Amino acid sequence: MQEIGVGVIGTAFMGKAHSLAYAAAGTAFGGGLRPRLEMVCDIDPDIAKAKQIEMGFARSTTNYMDVVNDPKVQLISICVPNSVHKEIAVAALKAGKHVWCEKPMATTVPEAEEMLAAANESNCQTMLGYNYTQNPLVQSARDLVNEGVIGEVTGFHGIYDVDNEADPDRPHSWRMSREASGTGANADVMCHLVSMAHFMTGAEVTRLVGDYDTVYKERKDPNNPEQMLPVDNDDVCTALAHFSSGIKGTLRVSRVAWGRKCGLRWEIHGSQGMICHDQERLNELQLYKRSDDPRQQGFRTIHSGQYHEPYSAFLPNAGHTLGFIDVKVCELHKLLTAISENTPAWPSFEDGLKIEKVMDAIDRSAMSGAWTDV
Amino acid sequence: MQEIGVGVIGTAFMGKAHSLAYAAAGTAFGGGLRPRLEMVCDIDPDIAKAKQIEMGFARSTTNYMDVVNDPKVQLISICVPNSVHKEIAVAALKAGKHVWCEKPMATTVPEAEEMLAAANESNCQTMLGYNYTQNPLVQSARDLVNEGVIGEVTGFHGIYDVDNEADPDRPHSWRMSREASGTGANADVMCHLVSMAHFMTGAEVTRLVGDYDTVYKERKDPNNPEQMLPVDNDDVCTALAHFSSGIKGTLRVSRVAWGRKCGLRWEIHGSQGMICHDQERLNELQLYKRSDDPRQQGFRTIHSGQYHEPYSAFLPNAGHTLGFIDVKVCELHKLLTAISENTPAWPSFEDGLKIEKVMDAIDRSAMSGAWTDV
Amino acid sequence: MQEIGVGVIGTAFMGKAHSLAYAAAGTAFGGGLRPRLEMVCDIDPDIAKAKQIEMGFARSTTNYMDVVNDPKVQLISICVPNSVHKEIAVAALKAGKHVWCEKPMATTVPEAEEMLAAANESNCQTMLGYNYTQNPLVQSARDLVNEGVIGEVTGFHGIYDVDNEADPDRPHSWRMSREASGTGANADVMCHLVSMAHFMTGAEVTRLVGDYDTVYKERKDPNNPEQMLPVDNDDVCTALAHFSSGIKGTLRVSRVAWGRKCGLRWEIHGSQGMICHDQERLNELQLYKRSDDPRQQGFRTIHSGQYHEPYSAFLPNAGHTLGFIDVKVCELHKLLTAISENTPAWPSFEDGLKIEKVMDAIDRSAMSGAWTDV
Amino acid sequence: MQEIGVGVIGTAFMGKAHSLAYAAAGTAFGGGLRPRLEMVCDIDPDIAKAKQIEMGFARSTTNYMDVVNDPKVQLISICVPNSVHKEIAVAALKAGKHVWCEKPMATTVPEAEEMLAAANESNCQTMLGYNYTQNPLVQSARDLVNEGVIGEVTGFHGIYDVDNEADPDRPHSWRMSREASGTGANADVMCHLVSMAHFMTGAEVTRLVGDYDTVYKERKDPNNPEQMLPVDNDDVCTALAHFSSGIKGTLRVSRVAWGRKCGLRWEIHGSQGMICHDQERLNELQLYKRSDDPRQQGFRTIHSGQYHEPYSAFLPNAGHTLGFIDVKVCELHKLLTAISENTPAWPSFEDGLKIEKVMDAIDRSAMSGAWTDV
Ligand SMILES: NC(=O)C1=CN([C@@H]2O[C@H](COP(=O)(O)OP(=O)(O)OC[C@H]3O[C@@H](n4cnc5c(N)ncnc54)[C@H](O)[C@@H]3O)[C@@H](O)[C@H]2O)C=CC1
Ligand SMILES: NC(=O)C1=CN([C@@H]2O[C@H](COP(=O)(O)OP(=O)(O)OC[C@H]3O[C@@H](n4cnc5c(N)ncnc54)[C@H](O)[C@@H]3O)[C@@H](O)[C@H]2O)C=CC1
Ligand SMILES: NC(=O)C1=CN([C@@H]2O[C@H](COP(=O)(O)OP(=O)(O)OC[C@H]3O[C@@H](n4cnc5c(N)ncnc54)[C@H](O)[C@@H]3O)[C@@H](O)[C@H]2O)C=CC1
Ligand SMILES: NC(=O)C1=CN([C@@H]2O[C@H](COP(=O)(O)OP(=O)(O)OC[C@H]3O[C@@H](n4cnc5c(N)ncnc54)[C@H](O)[C@@H]3O)[C@@H](O)[C@H]2O)C=CC1
Repeated sequence: MQEIGVGVIGTAFMGKAHSLAYAAAGTAFGGGLRPRLEMVCDIDPDIAKAKQIEMGFARSTTNYMDVVNDPKVQLISICVPNSVHKEIAVAALKAGKHVWCEKPMATTVPEAEEMLAAANESNCQTMLGYNYTQNPLVQSARDLVNEGVIGEVTGFHGIYDVDNEADPDRPHSWRMSREASGTGANADVMCHLVSMAHFMTGAEVTRLVGDYDTVYKERKDPNNPEQMLPVDNDDVCTALAHFSSGIKGTLRVSRVAWGRKCGLRWEIHGSQGMICHDQERLNELQLYKRSDDPRQQGFRTIHSGQYHEPYSAFLPNAGHTLGFIDVKVCELHKLLTAISENTPAWPSFEDGLKIEKVMDAIDRSAMSGAWTDV
Repeated sequence: MQEIGVGVIGTAFMGKAHSLAYAAAGTAFGGGLRPRLEMVCDIDPDIAKAKQIEMGFARSTTNYMDVVNDPKVQLISICVPNSVHKEIAVAALKAGKHVWCEKPMATTVPEAEEMLAAANESNCQTMLGYNYTQNPLVQSARDLVNEGVIGEVTGFHGIYDVDNEADPDRPHSWRMSREASGTGANADVMCHLVSMAHFMTGAEVTRLVGDYDTVYKERKDPNNPEQMLPVDNDDVCTALAHFSSGIKGTLRVSRVAWGRKCGLRWEIHGSQGMICHDQERLNELQLYKRSDDPRQQGFRTIHSGQYHEPYSAFLPNAGHTLGFIDVKVCELHKLLTAISENTPAWPSFEDGLKIEKVMDAIDRSAMSGAWTDV
Repeated sequence: MQEIGVGVIGTAFMGKAHSLAYAAAGTAFGGGLRPRLEMVCDIDPDIAKAKQIEMGFARSTTNYMDVVNDPKVQLISICVPNSVHKEIAVAALKAGKHVWCEKPMATTVPEAEEMLAAANESNCQTMLGYNYTQNPLVQSARDLVNEGVIGEVTGFHGIYDVDNEADPDRPHSWRMSREASGTGANADVMCHLVSMAHFMTGAEVTRLVGDYDTVYKERKDPNNPEQMLPVDNDDVCTALAHFSSGIKGTLRVSRVAWGRKCGLRWEIHGSQGMICHDQERLNELQLYKRSDDPRQQGFRTIHSGQYHEPYSAFLPNAGHTLGFIDVKVCELHKLLTAISENTPAWPSFEDGLKIEKVMDAIDRSAMSGAWTDV
Repeated sequence: MQEIGVGVIGTAFMGKAHSLAYAAAGTAFGGGLRPRLEMVCDIDPDIAKAKQIEMGFARSTTNYMDVVNDPKVQLISICVPNSVHKEIAVAALKAGKHVWCEKPMATTVPEAEEMLAAANESNCQTMLGYNYTQNPLVQSARDLVNEGVIGEVTGFHGIYDVDNEADPDRPHSWRMSREASGTGANADVMCHLVSMAHFMTGAEVTRLVGDYDTVYKERKDPNNPEQMLPVDNDDVCTALAHFSSGIKGTLRVSRVAWGRKCGLRWEIHGSQGMICHDQERLNELQLYKRSDDPRQQGFRTIHSGQYHEPYSAFLPNAGHTLGFIDVKVCELHKLLTAISENTPAWPSFEDGLKIEKVMDAIDRSAMSGAWTDV
């Protein structure tokens, strides 16, 4: 069992998730590369130091270039705000480090293109944190589709609703400003849905018409609750979409949908059946097969289990349930395998750029009102 | 208890459903008008005669004008193919008969306009068979929305998927020809969804962009299975929609969605909660209230019961479940009340025309590719 | 199509349900006997008169013997309190009338035996109102079991929880007195569950140990809320059971289970699969087959449809959903067929007596604390 | 942040789960004791060596006494077959090591008593692996019950069905022999259910009547498939139970229930509501409150989230879902807190002995057929 030195930049939700994944990978998967926790970085020095100890890293820093340049680090996790992804990714790739970058890839298509160029010029592997596609059950769903279990794919329909910003009394933040953060639900939520659409269909969105809704057009100034500040990006983002494979579909996301906590729900329609998934029940897949005896036809609720590998890296029997962190470990395992086999894994920066372009096309269409090519 | 003479034209799925409703109304509701089964009509004389006996009508005919002109008939059910709705409705209204007409109202907007004109010139009540809106639980949902239980309405999203035509080996029929039947899923399925969108929001779709997909572009000629005939109307119909109240939403329907039997599912988003419904579980409503204690927040699965009137016209306690036919009885009860109180009930021909116009706008938009006013 | 004259005794929940079924049967089923509403009876003269008109009967009475003796009546519905079932049933059978009697059969085993003796001495058909077993989907489940779809039956486990009496502030009533009404949840709720256990297994409970719980040991006197009256029968009734076929199982019911409206849930375990049902979702059956491909194994949610006859007596396509009343119409249809074919249908008085004996054995066991033969 | 040296004995399902928990605890919880992976032990030398490297332990051994005696080890995980629990636990406690022991505690009550005695004589903390009770959502459910959200507790009903041995063609194993492994489903599955019953009710089962069913009475000899070997312990184990608090309930488990993967489902009934949970949906709690507005009453599906601590040790927002391993980390966290605060956590060996005694009473009752005191 070989080791690989890793560094993590950013220590909030995702920095923690990546660190948990690094700590679990060897035990869970046994074979393959075993991560060695070298350096953790956070812009805040107190946090950096505290996290080094808690998370068990050998060293810490506040300057991400220390991670980039550390000779013991071969793989770098980028878990910082989107606006910093590009500069770190480009620096890391230039320094010959593999990159595990959180979603979305960047804040603009040109940035993403620069990142891909850097990846192409390197000998390194890249992976984007579209974790929902890495769920063993979702991967198995993709296999079923590929094997023709639902016949020819005839459509894809996806929703990703969350209630992060659903409270009208939640004050204004940088997330609600187009200048500060770009698009709203489009950038933050739609990217996950597009990744799923691309993954499940094996095709790409090529043409679409999109729409935005800013449900709460102003929000309280957090520094002065008497005053309202305008919200100028999208709370809700919807699109009718055409895919490269000829199928059509719909995509809709909202950040103001009360009750949906991680409401990523999708359906893939086929000529002989249907498969559906709801991320809030990540261990359950719905499969309908019209070939079943008519009296016995119905959606099957399939529980994650040992037949949906790499489930058994964690648990020997079905029904015991994986969680979000376990799926992140699966994502990491794919990247580690890509590194040791020197073969890209989905979604690399190349795949990620395609996702960015869809979000960009939705944005252009929502502004122009016209059907738009990706 | 007063009686009202009724006639039913057409004796298939809906003719039977109307007849069952007429037979049940007095027993279920006690008060109000009691239907008296006068005349049944079917174009096929054997069927007409058989149904008269089975269903308990006093007389039968093959000519719908006999029903229209029968002095003992005061209320007429139109349960024939869409292309015949207009001529019967206009004749019945001219003859001073109340009309219970199946959905969709007609096959074109001008036809529907003619029907509305006839209604306006009469002293009669009209009602369209958008039964899913008449479910006591759905009516109660509308009350909850009106009372502000989910705060301000912020969006409406609806799906209506069925698998009637999902089998690619199903032969060609008149339903698959634009000339013979007009639009496909748009006319047949979308109309129900639009009725729900209008009912639940209390607003109307005013502007939209629509898209069609003909998933199976040709089908076997039923008379010559060696030959294929083109399908030139929509298997799938989707739209992004703006409402008169300022909210936005999405609508999508399919007639080729395996596993969905009566998959009318909708969500109404609010500033303080959400309500969802799935027609396949017609006795269950989902309600999320953000005002609940945070540890106790979750969608409530509310079962139809005596608090959702007129449930108790059928059953004294919750959980015993109403079915499709019971809801049709509720629909009839609304019409009978409208007749005895001489006050229109929703959806009358006036409301129905608004629904037709949305379907027409979707059709125009799907053809032009542009955002279109209703 | 032949007619059959019917009389209904009792006009509350069940009297109404039977009357609705009589009014619907001809239209729904077409062929077979067509009920003709002859006489309705209620002990309260105002109700009797009102119901005659509302429900469309030809005559009414306050004396059930008028129904029994009416020459135009051939079939009698007994929809009165349990304590009156026996005298009416015996009189009706002696008068040569077929009997449709509500559940439970009687209040004691000897009464039920007397009823069966009267049935055996007559040429008449009898049927008991165990409607939940008559659901087309449940009947289809029984077929699947018989066909070996789940292999050998290895166990049956059933629950029937309701919340009718769950409110501790609900005042005392005759239902809570052993003297006035016999056992509590055992008589009222367990009987339905035992009927399902017998129907689904095709076997009978032969030996058991039972237990009672009186959760609320006293209740307010309705006439004097200051005073408490003792409750001396069972709020909860449970049993471990052995069946004539050699399998074992469990039965539990409660009338004080908040949130369960009609919570009749059962599972039949087999050597190759499992089938489950929940009455609150009467249109959905759960089926698990271990023969499915391992990656695709899961409980199927099967919707009632045209493949589960006599569903199509009401609706042509799956997913439109039957309700409680429709199932009552199915029950009636079975009885009408039994009458016209002169062959008993399940559950006749013979089958009902077996159910009564199980409830009686539970009662004896709950008192003695010992395993008890039925 | 202080460290604690840990050793793990046994490296199969549970040995892996404990090791994953040790690796994650520091990162997840930040504060408290941070585990340091000292020594791993497996009876198989190749496995011991391989697991040392994969799992990141400093040393390995095949002799558990090496772990017990290692001066750097302060906390020992016992993840070996039940028959070895006692000897290791007693040795470890004598050596002054804290013990995290897998369920069930032991194979006989006297063994469990010996373990408790050793714990009582030590200054060490003990914890048993009844992980399902450690789920943050289940812990929160217990809080809700304690706060009176469902009023007075009136009953507890639990099921734990799995299909591990459901295949009749599965060959005989030591698990199916009373001599080799003691009781069957009782020891292996019922213990989890009893732990849940004790945890959720805050009371103990004191009296019961139990029953066994050996569904498959013989199984193929794995060494000679032509020959059958007898199964002489329970496939199914059921009980009617009385609790120390005065409530009653039911318990049933099966190891031959097709389709149930980890089917631990329980309901706690109250005078003002009900709470239910299904382990296969470990992130969802069902709560019914009769105090809700009648039109809005229904079971709420509550998703695990930041309001159900320690959820946020893993994830900042609800809906992202914890898995089995995360819950094991929560269990460990409780033990680490107990150690650092020198205060026992539930379920210690004292609590575990009470669980063993219930299983023993079920066994005695199933043999004698009589109601039995625990
Ligand atoms: N895959 C998924 O499901 C999710 C992905 N994300 C993505 O992960 C990324 C990080 O988001 P969160 O974890 O929510 O963190 P955050 O945005 O709340 O905080 C970022 C962290 O990075 C640190 N940081 C900021 N600038 C830095 C710099 N220049 N150098 C070093 N450290 C710096 C901050 O101190 C903080 O610890 C984002 O791109 C986000 O879109 C976030 C949540 C879920
Ligand atoms: N509300 C709902 O959920 C549903 C509404 N419908 C609507 O109900 C209407 C009827 O559809 P189905 O019941 O499916 O029937 P159908 O279209 O299968 O058959 C129509 C019936 O009318 C008879 N008929 C045809 N032309 C006639 C004429 N000129 N005079 C007298 N009888 C004539 C036929 O013999 C047949 O009995 C349609 O408008 C349809 O869109 C249908 C199904 C569900
Ligand atoms: N199958 C099922 O799911 C259900 C069955 N039942 C059963 O149906 C029967 C009736 O119960 P409910 O309908 O709830 O009615 P109920 O018990 O509330 O009222 C009985 C009705 O019979 C009338 N009545 C009483 N004594 C009479 C007499 N001597 N002669 C004529 N009329 C008399 C009363 O005025 C009233 O209309 C009971 O046996 C009950 O167990 C009740 C509810 C559900
Ligand atoms: N909490 C839970 O949900 C679960 C608990 N368990 C419990 O965990 C314990 C272990 O079960 P599994 O993990 O399934 O393992 P197992 O029973 O399949 O294997 C036991 C492991 O211990 C090793 N071993 C056996 N004897 C040993 C000895 N004397 N010294 C050192 N190593 C020895 C074996 O080589 C193997 O690695 C049992 O008590 C079981 O009941 C098991 C599964 C789930």
